[in-house]
Amino acid sequence: MNALKKLLKHHFQSVYQETNRNFGVSTTRDMRLVQYKVKNQQGVQHLGAQLSIGGDIVDISGVDSSIPNTLVKMLKEGPEMYDKAKRIVAAGKSITRLADVDLLSPITKPDKVVCVGLNYSGHCAEQNIPHPKEPMFFSKFSSVIIGPNDNVVIPPITNSVDWEVELAVVIGKQAKCIRKDQVQDHIFGYTVAQDISARDWQKSRNNGQFLLGKSMDTFCPLGPAVVTKNKVDPNNLAIKSWVNGVLKQDGNTSELIFKTDFLISYLSQIVTLYPGDVILTGTPAGVGMHRNPPEFLKQGDLLESEIEGIGRLKNTVI
Amino acid sequence: MNALKKLLKHHFQSVYQETNRNFGVSTTRDMRLVQYKVKNQQGVQHLGAQLSIGGDIVDISGVDSSIPNTLVKMLKEGPEMYDKAKRIVAAGKSITRLADVDLLSPITKPDKVVCVGLNYSGHCAEQNIPHPKEPMFFSKFSSVIIGPNDNVVIPPITNSVDWEVELAVVIGKQAKCIRKDQVQDHIFGYTVAQDISARDWQKSRNNGQFLLGKSMDTFCPLGPAVVTKNKVDPNNLAIKSWVNGVLKQDGNTSELIFKTDFLISYLSQIVTLYPGDVILTGTPAGVGMHRNPPEFLKQGDLLESEIEGIGRLKNTVI
Repeated sequence: MNALKKLLKHHFQSVYQETNRNFGVSTTRDMRLVQYKVKNQQGVQHLGAQLSIGGDIVDISGVDSSIPNTLVKMLKEGPEMYDKAKRIVAAGKSITRLADVDLLSPITKPDKVVCVGLNYSGHCAEQNIPHPKEPMFFSKFSSVIIGPNDNVVIPPITNSVDWEVELAVVIGKQAKCIRKDQVQDHIFGYTVAQDISARDWQKSRNNGQFLLGKSMDTFCPLGPAVVTKNKVDPNNLAIKSWVNGVLKQDGNTSELIFKTDFLISYLSQIVTLYPGDVILTGTPAGVGMHRNPPEFLKQGDLLESEIEGIGRLKNTVI
Repeated sequence: MNALKKLLKHHFQSVYQETNRNFGVSTTRDMRLVQYKVKNQQGVQHLGAQLSIGGDIVDISGVDSSIPNTLVKMLKEGPEMYDKAKRIVAAGKSITRLADVDLLSPITKPDKVVCVGLNYSGHCAEQNIPHPKEPMFFSKFSSVIIGPNDNVVIPPITNSVDWEVELAVVIGKQAKCIRKDQVQDHIFGYTVAQDISARDWQKSRNNGQFLLGKSMDTFCPLGPAVVTKNKVDPNNLAIKSWVNGVLKQDGNTSELIFKTDFLISYLSQIVTLYPGDVILTGTPAGVGMHRNPPEFLKQGDLLESEIEGIGRLKNTVI
């Protein structure tokens, strides 16, 4: 009898997994949350789940209008809302081809975008500076976020705009004064970020405060998807960037000096983190400023930024 | 005949002004926008207009539910929505006694809170440093905003929490790359801010970046009202703070090194300013850190912060 039960259980598990394999998701597998607009349907934003990297998209908010059409709002509603979204994805009623949509940033208008400086050993080495003793945080205005395929705009006030591919953590649950071993409960997932930086403003203007050099309009490409945490090991992901097809950064998140769990616990001692908050965890070696001679982005460049298992940003510089 | 017309016109103007005097507002006079909850009606937030400093409140959002109950959302809806709010105030149907409400911050969840450092000659002098050649901007997370009577919390990680009373500008209309002479069109009004600062973190931690020392939870009291720009001369306002009734800062905004019009035009070259964005314009002399011996806030202190014609914050330190 026990053997029969076991067999049945195994059978139903297989069926369940198979069913979910069709949609690339299950409650125990990763979800790739995206925000998008369907081409030629101007103005209507959807929250959906992409089936795989480069794959088609299951509509969530368009199928069930009780689910918000932004990931930040969905996360703020709490786990029941996310469970509802997962059921919509598992049912997979409405699938849109990737070619038929414009992907937006998967996170828009979070309460905060926090960035960490000097967090890869290679990036410290290329500047000939020692590892920091504690993490250094600065911020970007959340209004400068753009989508994975949007244009990065060089404003007329700078001539030294640089790239920095980064792993970004997305908070899922409010966090205040949490311990390192509690952090995983508060993380929703991960995405790819570009911490675009006007080096002249970052280094020589604004009395040493990074804010303006880091927060010009369009200086935070994000996406293409927020991948839920289950299948992501944030401490072992290949992370790369290219300019016009030439590899510029080629690192691994294993080089992170302060790991994501430490960063988030530390930050939560200072300020409450809210669902949807985005934390950029630093960039590996290979930025333009520390090349010989220095290189900066110019109009017409294609900047690509990729993290293993998450996806690739493709931003044209204008 | 002309004399009669003149007389009639004068008469009706007087009536009009008298009518409006009852509500403390008119289309050409100042409005004092507030956000509040009625005591014992937990959870329902209202947008309203206070009749005068310390006066009672005309309900706006509770009378016409098509008007958002936050000032940021109302401003984002545009001038027609504000005109509608003005008509509700002029009609003055629902007036609540100040004693019956809890005032919230008049601005909640703006896209950004931007601050200016070293912008009063007296504050530069007390630090023995020259006037800056260009403004220095840093930011606070908008989630650290609290109301005019809320508690400022000293977290366990700092023992040098200081006060900085500041005039704050509230943006009314999106601004990108605007000239100085265009700035007035983009300002909605002014309020009182406290740029609470953990001096140890601001000066000696976080690798010189001000962010963490300025952005601990509760470190941005705002209010009590946003006063519309018509009757406010931002370049000539008495600005003061007290700790436990002892006057600590006693300045005038005429000392501003970079005037509000310049600051906003400058900032708009970097980043788009959105309706509801808050810009803190710097603090006059008299902060705790530069006293001899230095003074810092401690639990139980009452911090009061006042700007002429706008009102007073009363924040207890816990």
